[in-house]
Amino acid sequence: MASRTPPVATRSEDQRSGAERAPRRRLSVDERREQLIAVALELFSKHPPEDVSIDDIAAAAGASRPLVYHYFPGKQALYEESLRRAGQELAGRFEEPAEGPLSERLLRVMGRYLDFVEGHGPGFEALLRGGSVAASPGTNAVIDEVRRAAQEQILSHLAIADPSPGLRRTVRAWIANAEISSLDWLGERSVPREELQLQLVQEFVAAVTVTAAREPSLAVELAGFLAEEASGGPTGRLVRELAGLLGVPGLAEALGRLAAGES
Amino acid sequence: MASRTPPVATRSEDQRSGAERAPRRRLSVDERREQLIAVALELFSKHPPEDVSIDDIAAAAGASRPLVYHYFPGKQALYEESLRRAGQELAGRFEEPAEGPLSERLLRVMGRYLDFVEGHGPGFEALLRGGSVAASPGTNAVIDEVRRAAQEQILSHLAIADPSPGLRRTVRAWIANAEISSLDWLGERSVPREELQLQLVQEFVAAVTVTAAREPSLAVELAGFLAEEASGGPTGRLVRELAGLLGVPGLAEALGRLAAGES
Repeated sequence: MASRTPPVATRSEDQRSGAERAPRRRLSVDERREQLIAVALELFSKHPPEDVSIDDIAAAAGASRPLVYHYFPGKQALYEESLRRAGQELAGRFEEPAEGPLSERLLRVMGRYLDFVEGHGPGFEALLRGGSVAASPGTNAVIDEVRRAAQEQILSHLAIADPSPGLRRTVRAWIANAEISSLDWLGERSVPREELQLQLVQEFVAAVTVTAAREPSLAVELAGFLAEEASGGPTGRLVRELAGLLGVPGLAEALGRLAAGES
Repeated sequence: MASRTPPVATRSEDQRSGAERAPRRRLSVDERREQLIAVALELFSKHPPEDVSIDDIAAAAGASRPLVYHYFPGKQALYEESLRRAGQELAGRFEEPAEGPLSERLLRVMGRYLDFVEGHGPGFEALLRGGSVAASPGTNAVIDEVRRAAQEQILSHLAIADPSPGLRRTVRAWIANAEISSLDWLGERSVPREELQLQLVQEFVAAVTVTAAREPSLAVELAGFLAEEASGGPTGRLVRELAGLLGVPGLAEALGRLAAGES
């Protein structure tokens, strides 16, 4: 649609702001559209959508209000388009070469994910906390698409031809964990960022292990993954932390009794 | 407000439906209001909100459309009120006597939770999948309140005076797991209900164990909980399932190497 809109120059002079009246260089239609989206994304990242007006976007873009309306029917359309871009960018951050220990790949992915969360904090919160007046089927479709992309990326690293419903659920639930945990963390910062990053990866390893305990074919894959893990990596540290529990008075005995099946 | 509205009898005859014109027994104002909410809750449980009209509610209540509007300003208000009731009912299902092994208490709670999910399936899905046109700050406040009630109930069973941020996050993330998993399950029914119920409880035990591996004071509590667990209960079964992983070729060796800290 944008490429078929008449050039801005055809609009009457009095509709333009000062910045528009004296542009350093006239932007093409596509450039202007991209600029408006970029400016909107920046504003919607830093503020909840209800606090951003078309006037704010116009001012930040050095454009007039009518010019913004010339490209987008309204704030909601601009919000949804900037969200789509943010979603594409976030989905791209889940891409990771299939090399090295699995938990270290995921640690790198989570680093990029938390970069994104920090860089888009107020917008990320407004979007995922729910109750936003700007939530719509369009914004929810973007969220669902990012979740699906994350799930597929993670499943592809597990390299299992036909993931079971149980494993899909495990991955999906872990993605929800990452969302909820990063929302909490944005609000409270109760742990250092690196700690959250590590914990989420370890929680993934633990969740896959519990799933593998029910699924013999996944258990075989798990043995292969564990053989690749480094002792200094997230999984190695988790294994030693869990082994440390055996030193807690009474804990090893309780586990031994349960493992033996004695009531 | 409802108690100050004039009785229905003062309304003109032509505004009433047939059912209204010949009531078996005149309902009091409070009774009528409760009846409308109950009927709305029933309809909103069985259908997404966009498929339920004020006319549907009026017809199901044997009332006229103007009578419904007499009690509620519109469909959204009736939706939110019926949601509040459903939320209170759901929150009540998390209440459980503090007796017996922890995982068995949680298993009973999850049974009641899944009863609720099954009984309100389409409404539960429409509400939590996002993208509902009826989502609002009001509906989101109800969801948040139920999540908070669930979190507090579960923390109270853990009986830890001052839960750490890490433990609160673990519980919150597990609640998200229960939501996502029950949504998936409503759509796919890929595992029997009892299996999902058991898995969610086991995932809770696993998540708390991973958290305890980082938090010494929680580790001491964990030893206490495990000492109370029965070998035939969810935790006992989980321990044996995990122990079974040690029989998978290569897996015990990989864990041993990681536990020893050898790279």
